[in-house]
Amino acid sequence: MELTTLCYLEEDGKYLMMHRIKKKEDINQGKWIGVGGHFEFQESPEECICREVLEETGLHLLDYQYRGLVTFVYNDHDAEYMSLFTATKWRGSLTDCEEGVLEWIPKDEIEKLNLWAGDRIFLKLLAHRNSFFSLKLVYQDDDLTGAWLDGEKLVMRDGMYEV
Amino acid sequence: MELTTLCYLEEDGKYLMMHRIKKKEDINQGKWIGVGGHFEFQESPEECICREVLEETGLHLLDYQYRGLVTFVYNDHDAEYMSLFTATKWRGSLTDCEEGVLEWIPKDEIEKLNLWAGDRIFLKLLAHRNSFFSLKLVYQDDDLTGAWLDGEKLVMRDGMYEV
Repeated sequence: MELTTLCYLEEDGKYLMMHRIKKKEDINQGKWIGVGGHFEFQESPEECICREVLEETGLHLLDYQYRGLVTFVYNDHDAEYMSLFTATKWRGSLTDCEEGVLEWIPKDEIEKLNLWAGDRIFLKLLAHRNSFFSLKLVYQDDDLTGAWLDGEKLVMRDGMYEV
Repeated sequence: MELTTLCYLEEDGKYLMMHRIKKKEDINQGKWIGVGGHFEFQESPEECICREVLEETGLHLLDYQYRGLVTFVYNDHDAEYMSLFTATKWRGSLTDCEEGVLEWIPKDEIEKLNLWAGDRIFLKLLAHRNSFFSLKLVYQDDDLTGAWLDGEKLVMRDGMYEV
């Protein structure tokens, strides 16, 4: 199994998004995601996200919130457990990133981007829910085939899971 | 690294505690802890805690809350990430457990039990804090040598970490 973190930095109604177009053989190829990565030895979620944001953006997080845990199941692989953060305060200047192209995107335009289907669910939760959430997402290849919020199966209506 | 869950079932001002006196070669030998265990293949935290509580107590959880994530570091081992729950509603009857002896303990008597030092911190957080927390605990053998709450180092006063 894998443990990862992901953070959305937020400023003036925009999120810092990463367009994954720099790496070959990237499961996220072409998609827009936040910044983050894998836990290193003995790291807590906070230590991991602060290190990853620094490595990928050059920014030192000063204020961040742990917003949720996402359990990703992809085909017959073991699960990935992703700790999800938002951040509103940091110091430093944005640098280039090897993993993708960083861009500030107005929040109301993010849904037009090429996103994973499940990311649309947790972006909606980040926008409308204050309390911590636990979301399980099950994918068969590129298709999201099931979603559970806090242990309850989500219902799909008009092609979108209701949260 | 290891992923686990732990749950405190709560009724009439008491927690269901497990006295770990049944297994030999148990790192928890003699200690009192909640019920829980390791994640199985592709499980979410909710699926893991519901299965573990059922296996260890015979009870089906009906209402439970995800309260925090604890990052345990023990000597030079990789970390254990423990998802912490409380529960207030279930159905079924309490059964015997192979892992230890189950007993309902009034909450104000729990601090007198033989507990891990770090458990005293998260039990205090469960009692006094509503929002989700992330706690990192670093042990050298039986000694708790450091604790961080939401990324901030906790200060020790009078032999106890302040939260």
